[in-house]
Amino acid sequence: MTQTYQRIVLASRPQGGAVSPDNFRLERVPVPSVGPGEVLVRNHFLSLDPYMRGRMDDAKSYSAPQAIGETMLGGTAGVVEASQNPKFAPGDAVIGFLGWQEYGVSDGTGLNKVETRHVPLSAYLGPVGMPGVTAWYGLNQICQPKSGETVLVSAASGAVGSVVGQLAKMAGCRAVGIAGGPEKCAYVRDELGFDACVDHREHKDIRSMSAALKEAAPKGIDCLFENVGGVGLDAALARMNAFGRIAICGLIAGYEGGDIAIHNTRALLVNRLSLRGFIVSEHLEFWPQALGELAKGVATGKLKYRESIADGLAAAPAAFIGMLHGKNFGKQLVKLT
Amino acid sequence: MTQTYQRIVLASRPQGGAVSPDNFRLERVPVPSVGPGEVLVRNHFLSLDPYMRGRMDDAKSYSAPQAIGETMLGGTAGVVEASQNPKFAPGDAVIGFLGWQEYGVSDGTGLNKVETRHVPLSAYLGPVGMPGVTAWYGLNQICQPKSGETVLVSAASGAVGSVVGQLAKMAGCRAVGIAGGPEKCAYVRDELGFDACVDHREHKDIRSMSAALKEAAPKGIDCLFENVGGVGLDAALARMNAFGRIAICGLIAGYEGGDIAIHNTRALLVNRLSLRGFIVSEHLEFWPQALGELAKGVATGKLKYRESIADGLAAAPAAFIGMLHGKNFGKQLVKLT
Repeated sequence: MTQTYQRIVLASRPQGGAVSPDNFRLERVPVPSVGPGEVLVRNHFLSLDPYMRGRMDDAKSYSAPQAIGETMLGGTAGVVEASQNPKFAPGDAVIGFLGWQEYGVSDGTGLNKVETRHVPLSAYLGPVGMPGVTAWYGLNQICQPKSGETVLVSAASGAVGSVVGQLAKMAGCRAVGIAGGPEKCAYVRDELGFDACVDHREHKDIRSMSAALKEAAPKGIDCLFENVGGVGLDAALARMNAFGRIAICGLIAGYEGGDIAIHNTRALLVNRLSLRGFIVSEHLEFWPQALGELAKGVATGKLKYRESIADGLAAAPAAFIGMLHGKNFGKQLVKLT
Repeated sequence: MTQTYQRIVLASRPQGGAVSPDNFRLERVPVPSVGPGEVLVRNHFLSLDPYMRGRMDDAKSYSAPQAIGETMLGGTAGVVEASQNPKFAPGDAVIGFLGWQEYGVSDGTGLNKVETRHVPLSAYLGPVGMPGVTAWYGLNQICQPKSGETVLVSAASGAVGSVVGQLAKMAGCRAVGIAGGPEKCAYVRDELGFDACVDHREHKDIRSMSAALKEAAPKGIDCLFENVGGVGLDAALARMNAFGRIAICGLIAGYEGGDIAIHNTRALLVNRLSLRGFIVSEHLEFWPQALGELAKGVATGKLKYRESIADGLAAAPAAFIGMLHGKNFGKQLVKLT
């Protein structure tokens, strides 16, 4: 009897901005056989990330759109089950980009062996993976914080934001977060060690957010790591110090059509700000250094992280939609085993 | 009988955004005597520049506000009449920052002798002065255009924009301007040698402007030198190529309270843009090189420029207000002799 597994394909594109469960289709397909040079991986964890929302649209962006009827793209952590590739052996823990499915076949390209004695497998999809490197790159290469400066990061309890703030603290900065709700803010302050956290649910207009940021960052903001956009970004602009640096990593507030207009345009000039949008996959030369530092941080317990783990592939669409609305708490994963 | 001269002081701050002639007061005062180390300059030209609008407000900005009752600040070109400073002699042509007045006394700080055999005196307030260096710095140090790229500049017929486009052409780029009205656009194309010019009066909404920019910059925009803000900036963002660079030099569309919100925020991320606001006076280390190149351009006739010259100090307020509304054509000066 042929062994089968489940996968999720893109059934249709979101209409009117919001993603619906109907946009996805769960399928059962046969586990493929492994050809020469190939590796069969049993995926243990699927990573859900905001960038996936952009791929679902058929719009000009930095990547080609996800094709209809194809397995949803995504990062995965798993274990090799069968291999005809000399670089991989059954039992190897591997990180790949095998998508929303329980199994995946790879020719080895983009598949990386990882050690799981000191770092848990799932962490390679979070603080020691793409989100961690995103934080590391944007903070160190764009924001370039100096000791004593103030760093603000939005979505501060998330996979990227939590690393940004902790790296900022290690660099001797005041770390200020923006997060949604008292529970996330308490975590950001008390567990991650940020100096302050602003609850954006309490400050929905720019005047209120601006006052909150003034209190949380009394010496102004030198570095802004932006994951969200909208009111938080707009209010922060006016609180930036001269020669402040802004890394635009994500604008999740606008991914489903929300208003992310910048009204404090004048602050860009008056405060002589530098701003740069970036995609971490375009800066692969920094990954080895970043991953080395991040792995050390996790292995020694200095770099803390939190995961929201959905159970089973069928739960992925709801978890993904929830993440787009901030319902996750920390890195959103799907456990597939 | 004591010799007297005229000066203009700030009488009051603009209310509700718009500058009014009432905000200025013309005064007649005695020509001061020259003390030890001092120089008396007869100002021949006063430079009117958009940055002055910001100084008239009592708002947080990069410079202290202009004080009420004090002579309006401004760059001047003139000739030394009397000197007790060994560095200056009567008859020397000098550029200074002596303000809206027919005479000025200086201790020599910020006063620079210039040669007027190859470069006309007034050009030191335009292409071979602050506006020219502004163009040079923003283009070369921020936009960093490469041969074959497309450079877009707003207020393209103005003191700064006209230099930006001509330097871009010299660098082997396609130069595209935005200017107000068919006469200015014809000048930008036919006299300054830009490849294309978009008349913003014909394209007042973002959709129309975007279509015009697509036609004028068919290969997209690599460098944007922004003097204006508003619809032009917003439309340009969506037409920027990946890794495009934006220099924010001015946002004159917002100086009197106009809407300069950025709605295409997403383009900053999707196109991985870099943006930087700057003030040329904070980069004095580049002035000698820039002024040398600009002087050579003017002396050889390769760098063209145009002046709007108001006659007499009393005409300065109306000329200044006109400039804020784009009524000038080229560098706005006031002739004081």
